[in-house]
Amino acid sequence: MKKGLIVVVLAAGIGKRFWPFTTDKSVFPAVDEPLIFHNLKKLEAAGFSRFLIITNPANDALIASRPVPVGIETATSIQKEPGGMADALLSARPLLEGHPILVVNAEDLVEDTLYKDIASGIRKSEPFIVGKYTEKYFDGGYIKLSQNRLMSIVEKPGEGQEPSKYINLVFHFFPVADIFLDRLRLVKTSRDDRYEKALDMFASEFAVSVISYDGHWTPFKYPWHVLDAMQYLLTHSLTSGKGKNVDIHNNVSLEGTVRIGNNVKIFENTKIVGPVYIGDNTIIGNNNIIRDTVIGNNCVTGFNTDITRSYIGDNCWFHSNYIGDSVLEGDVSMGSGSVLANLRLDEAEIYSVISNEKKNTQRAKLGAMIGRNVRIGVNASIMPGVKIGANSFVGAGVVLDKDIPEDSFCMMQPGYVVKKNKVKISGDRAAYKAKL
Amino acid sequence: MKKGLIVVVLAAGIGKRFWPFTTDKSVFPAVDEPLIFHNLKKLEAAGFSRFLIITNPANDALIASRPVPVGIETATSIQKEPGGMADALLSARPLLEGHPILVVNAEDLVEDTLYKDIASGIRKSEPFIVGKYTEKYFDGGYIKLSQNRLMSIVEKPGEGQEPSKYINLVFHFFPVADIFLDRLRLVKTSRDDRYEKALDMFASEFAVSVISYDGHWTPFKYPWHVLDAMQYLLTHSLTSGKGKNVDIHNNVSLEGTVRIGNNVKIFENTKIVGPVYIGDNTIIGNNNIIRDTVIGNNCVTGFNTDITRSYIGDNCWFHSNYIGDSVLEGDVSMGSGSVLANLRLDEAEIYSVISNEKKNTQRAKLGAMIGRNVRIGVNASIMPGVKIGANSFVGAGVVLDKDIPEDSFCMMQPGYVVKKNKVKISGDRAAYKAKL
Amino acid sequence: MKKGLIVVVLAAGIGKRFWPFTTDKSVFPAVDEPLIFHNLKKLEAAGFSRFLIITNPANDALIASRPVPVGIETATSIQKEPGGMADALLSARPLLEGHPILVVNAEDLVEDTLYKDIASGIRKSEPFIVGKYTEKYFDGGYIKLSQNRLMSIVEKPGEGQEPSKYINLVFHFFPVADIFLDRLRLVKTSRDDRYEKALDMFASEFAVSVISYDGHWTPFKYPWHVLDAMQYLLTHSLTSGKGKNVDIHNNVSLEGTVRIGNNVKIFENTKIVGPVYIGDNTIIGNNNIIRDTVIGNNCVTGFNTDITRSYIGDNCWFHSNYIGDSVLEGDVSMGSGSVLANLRLDEAEIYSVISNEKKNTQRAKLGAMIGRNVRIGVNASIMPGVKIGANSFVGAGVVLDKDIPEDSFCMMQPGYVVKKNKVKISGDRAAYKAKL
Repeated sequence: MKKGLIVVVLAAGIGKRFWPFTTDKSVFPAVDEPLIFHNLKKLEAAGFSRFLIITNPANDALIASRPVPVGIETATSIQKEPGGMADALLSARPLLEGHPILVVNAEDLVEDTLYKDIASGIRKSEPFIVGKYTEKYFDGGYIKLSQNRLMSIVEKPGEGQEPSKYINLVFHFFPVADIFLDRLRLVKTSRDDRYEKALDMFASEFAVSVISYDGHWTPFKYPWHVLDAMQYLLTHSLTSGKGKNVDIHNNVSLEGTVRIGNNVKIFENTKIVGPVYIGDNTIIGNNNIIRDTVIGNNCVTGFNTDITRSYIGDNCWFHSNYIGDSVLEGDVSMGSGSVLANLRLDEAEIYSVISNEKKNTQRAKLGAMIGRNVRIGVNASIMPGVKIGANSFVGAGVVLDKDIPEDSFCMMQPGYVVKKNKVKISGDRAAYKAKL
Repeated sequence: MKKGLIVVVLAAGIGKRFWPFTTDKSVFPAVDEPLIFHNLKKLEAAGFSRFLIITNPANDALIASRPVPVGIETATSIQKEPGGMADALLSARPLLEGHPILVVNAEDLVEDTLYKDIASGIRKSEPFIVGKYTEKYFDGGYIKLSQNRLMSIVEKPGEGQEPSKYINLVFHFFPVADIFLDRLRLVKTSRDDRYEKALDMFASEFAVSVISYDGHWTPFKYPWHVLDAMQYLLTHSLTSGKGKNVDIHNNVSLEGTVRIGNNVKIFENTKIVGPVYIGDNTIIGNNNIIRDTVIGNNCVTGFNTDITRSYIGDNCWFHSNYIGDSVLEGDVSMGSGSVLANLRLDEAEIYSVISNEKKNTQRAKLGAMIGRNVRIGVNASIMPGVKIGANSFVGAGVVLDKDIPEDSFCMMQPGYVVKKNKVKISGDRAAYKAKL
Repeated sequence: MKKGLIVVVLAAGIGKRFWPFTTDKSVFPAVDEPLIFHNLKKLEAAGFSRFLIITNPANDALIASRPVPVGIETATSIQKEPGGMADALLSARPLLEGHPILVVNAEDLVEDTLYKDIASGIRKSEPFIVGKYTEKYFDGGYIKLSQNRLMSIVEKPGEGQEPSKYINLVFHFFPVADIFLDRLRLVKTSRDDRYEKALDMFASEFAVSVISYDGHWTPFKYPWHVLDAMQYLLTHSLTSGKGKNVDIHNNVSLEGTVRIGNNVKIFENTKIVGPVYIGDNTIIGNNNIIRDTVIGNNCVTGFNTDITRSYIGDNCWFHSNYIGDSVLEGDVSMGSGSVLANLRLDEAEIYSVISNEKKNTQRAKLGAMIGRNVRIGVNASIMPGVKIGANSFVGAGVVLDKDIPEDSFCMMQPGYVVKKNKVKISGDRAAYKAKL
C-alpha cells in the first residue's frame, strides 16, 4: 500500500537575522496567532491533512501551547541543536521514509491559487519546486531552468546575473522522501547550501519541474518583514467584528475592516482606520488615530497617540506617541512625547544594520524594531530603522540613532547648564494677556 | 466660672521641607481655599467655636485676607521669629491661661468621626492625645503606650523598632492649659522635640489617654504631600457645580464630580474626568484631557494638554503638555511639547532630594514640584520627583534630572553641529506621494 | 494732447533683508496671490488703469505667469542688474517721458481711503507725496515739512530726533515725469538714498505737498513682515467660501471667515478659527486646530497639529506640530513633535539677526522663518525668531537657537551614553496595574 503525503513544515530556524525579536519568525504572533498557524490553516483548507513540524525546543513550546486547527494531524520532530534545512530533514528521516513529502517553510505567506497548483502537481506524482516570478533583484536563491525544468539553484547571483526571473520558494515536492534524503546525506558541502546542493544533485538525476507563481510572496528574514506579513494578513484574512464586553465611547469613528477583541475600550474622539486588529483587554485612549495596525492584548494607547502601519505585541503602554511603520514585540512602554520616526529627512530608503553591515531595507518608511521589555522615556526620538534589544531602557530626550543590544541603559549625558536667572518675572498675567 | 475651650491651631511652621513652594503648608491653597480654612470649617461643623491661631507674619497676611467661616471666633497670635511648637504655644500663654485647650495642626486632614471622638473626649475633661493606627513605617513620632495610656513619644524609632502601631497626631487636649505650659517652660532640651519632651513629662504625672484613630490621615510635610491632601479634598469635599457665565463648547465630556468656576470656557473635544476643580476665569483648550486635578484661577490649558492627578495653582499657562502627578504653585508656563514625567523607566518608587538627601517618596507616580513664576521651554522634559525653585527658567529641550534653586536659568548647551547639506531635495511632492 | 497717467510700480527689489525667502517681497504669495496683484487690483478699483511695472528677471517670470486683473494695461521694464529706486526709474525713462507718474511700491498695503485721497491729489496736477502718521519710532525715512509742504526726507533720524510724526510712504506723484527724472540723473550720491536726495532737490524747486495718512500701513522689509501683510489681507480681503469637491468629516468646527480651496479634505475633531485660507488639494488632518493662518496648496497637516497666526506656503507636510507666528515659504516638512516656538521664556520682544546684527522685531510672539525645501526632524525645537535657509535639514531633537544658511545639515552630536541595564523588568503588567 502506498504511503500517504506528509507536509514537512520547517520551523526550526534560529533567526539570528530576526534580532531584536526573541521569538522566532515561524512562530511570531502575526495578527492573532503565530505565523505557522496561519499556514497550517491555509494548508488544511487546501486539502492537506498530515503534517510533520520540524522545530526546536523554544518554538515547540509555543506551538504546543495552542490548539492545532481542527481536521489535521501533526507530529513534531524537535531539532535540539540549531542546524540548516538539511539537518532538519535528516533528523526526521525515520518518520518520512517511504512517504511522498511536500517541504514548506512555516512562515511563507502565499495566495490560495498556489496551494491549488501545488495540490494538482502532487496528484501527478512527479517532483517539482515553485518558482516565484520577480522583476526586482532579490538577495536569495534563483532557479536556473531549461524549459520548465530545474537545472540548479543559484544562491545570490548578484543583480544583473540572475539565471532567470524565478526565485526558489520552499514548496518542494518529492514523491518518495528517501530518494531525496539519500542525496542530502551524500552532500558534504558547508551547511548553508547543503539542501540546495542536494536538490541540484537530485535534479541532475530526475526531472524536477518548476511551478511558476506570480502572486503575493515577500521574504521573511529580517525584522521589518513582520510589517509585510502583517500587512498581507490584515488585507487578506481580517474580517470586521467585535468581541464581548466592548465599550466604545462617544464620537469614535471606525472605518474599514476593524476587528476588536473582548473587553476592549475605545475612548472619545478616536479614529480607527482599518484594517486594524485590536486584541483582548486593550484600551484605546482619547483622541487617538490608529491605522493599518495590529495591537495585541492588554495594551493601553493612552491619550493622543498615533499608531500607523505598525505591529504592537501584547502588554504595550503608550502616551501621546507617534509610532510609524514599527514593530514592538511586546511589553514595551513609551513616555509622553516619545516618537518612533519613520522617514529620513532626505526621504531616501532606510538602512538597518544586520550582522554589522548596513542593509538597505528598500523601505522609504520604516520606524523602530523593539524587543521585549523595553522602556522609552518622555520626548525620546528613535531614528528610522533602529533596533532595540530586549530589556533595555532609553532615557528621556535621547535621540537614538543606532541599534543598542539587549540589557542596555541609554541615557542623555547632562547637556544643560544652570546659571543665575537675572530676569524678573512679574507674574502679572493681565499685563501679559494685553500684549497678546 | 469655668473658662471655655480654646482650639489652638498651629500655623506658624516655616516649611523648609516644603520647598520649592513659597507658601507655607498650613495656608497652602488646597482646591479652593487655604488648608487651614478647610480645617476651621470642619472644626466648626464639629461644634468648636473659639480658636487661637498661632501663626507667623507671612501666613497671618494670607489668613487675614480671607473671611473666617461664619459662626466662629478667632484670635491670632503671631510668632515673629520661626520657632517650634513649644515656642509657639509659650508665646501665646497669656491668651490661654486657665482655659482647656485642644492643640491641633492647621494642615492635618482627618475624617469627621475623629472630630466626634475628640468632642466626646473633651466632655470627660481628662487629657488625651490621638494615635493613628498605621501598618507601614512612618518617619515620625510613635506613641509608647500601656493599655490605653500614653507612656512617652518616641521620635523616628526606625523600622521594626516602633513601640506601637500608633503615630502621634497633634490633637492634644489639656483640661487646663497652664499645667502643660509650665512643663513646656521647664524642658530645656533642643528645640525640635521640646514639645514632645514636655508631653512625656506631663504624661508621667497625669494620666493621658490615647484615642485610637484608624481613618484617613496622611503626613503633610513634603511638597508631594500636596497631592495627597488635594486627592482627599477632591474625593471628600467636592460637589459638582457650575459658576456664572460658563461656556462649554460642542463635544465636551464631563464625567464624575466636576466643579467649574465663574467665566470658565471649555473648548471642543475635551474630556474632564472628575473629581476635578476648575477655578474662575480659566480656559480649558481644545482636545484636552483633565483627570483628578485641581486647576486654579486664570489658567489657560491650551490645545491638546493632558493634566492628570495634579495641582495647578493660579495663572498657569500650558500648551500641548503632559502634566502628571505634579504640583505647580502658580504663575507657571510650559511651552509646547514639554512634559512633567511621572514614572521611572524601572517603574520603581521615586526619590526626591530633601536637605541634600535622597528621600523615597513612596510613590510609583510623581511628577515635578514647581515654585512660582517658572517658565519651561518647548520640548523640555522634567524628570520624576524634580523640584524647581521660584523665578526659574528651564530652556527648550532640557532633560532636567535634578532640582534647581530659585532664580535659575537652565539651558541646553549647544548640542548640535551644522554641516553642509549635500542632499538635493526636489520638492516634488507628487513623486514623493507616489512613494507612500 | 496731454499724456495719460502711468502708475510706476517698483517691483525690482533684491530683498537681501528678506532672507531666507527665495521669492522677493513684491511677488511673495500673500494669501492667494503675489502681493503685487493685491495692489494692482486695489489700484484698478481706485480708477487707475495704466501701469509700468519695473521688475527684475526673476520677479518678471512670476508676474508674467499669472493673468493681470481685467481692465488694466501693464507694461514691464526689466532691471537686469540689481539697483535702487533711482536706477529702476531711470532705466524706464523712455517709457515715461512726458507722462504724469505715480510712483508706488509693489508691496505696500494701505487702506482704500488713501487711494481715494491720492486720486483727488492727482486731479490737482501738483506734485505730492504721502506721509504716514506714526507715534512709535520707525527705522526708515521721515518727512521734514513746513505747513503742509515737503522740506526734505530724513533717513533713520534716530528715536527722539524725528523731524515730524510723518513717515515717507512711496506714493509719489509727479505731474511730468521728466522733471523729476532729470534731478534723479543729476544726483551723484551713493545709491541707497539717491532717490530721496533727488526728491529733496525737486522739493527745493517745486512745492511738493504732503498727503497725511493715518490708516493701516506696516513696513514690508524683513521676513516677519509677511505675517503683518497676511494678517491685513486675511482681515480685510478674505471672504468665506468653499471650492469644488471639498470633503469635511464629522465633528469639524468652522468659525469666522474660512476660505477653503478645491479638493480640500478636513478630518474629524478639527477646529478652524478664521480668518483662515486653505489652498487647493490640501489635507487638514484629525484633531487639528488652525487659527488666523494661510495654508497654501498641496499641504498635509497630519494628525494633531496646531497652526496659529502663520503663513504656510505650498507643499508643506506636518505631523503633530506646533507652528506659531511663523512663515514657511513652501516645501517644508516637520517631523512628529517638532515645534516652532513663538515666545521667549522672559516674554520679551524677540530679536532676529539681519546682516549680522540682532534686530528687535518688536514682536512678543514670533516663530521661525523658513526658506524652501527644508526638512525638520522629530522632536526638534526651533527658537523664536530663528531663520532657516533653503535646502536645509534640521535633525531630530535639535534645539536650534541661531540662523542657519542655505544647504545646512544640522544634527545632534551624540549626547547619550549606553550602559549596561542592571534593572530586571518583569513584564508583569498585572502587578504593575495593581500599583496604579
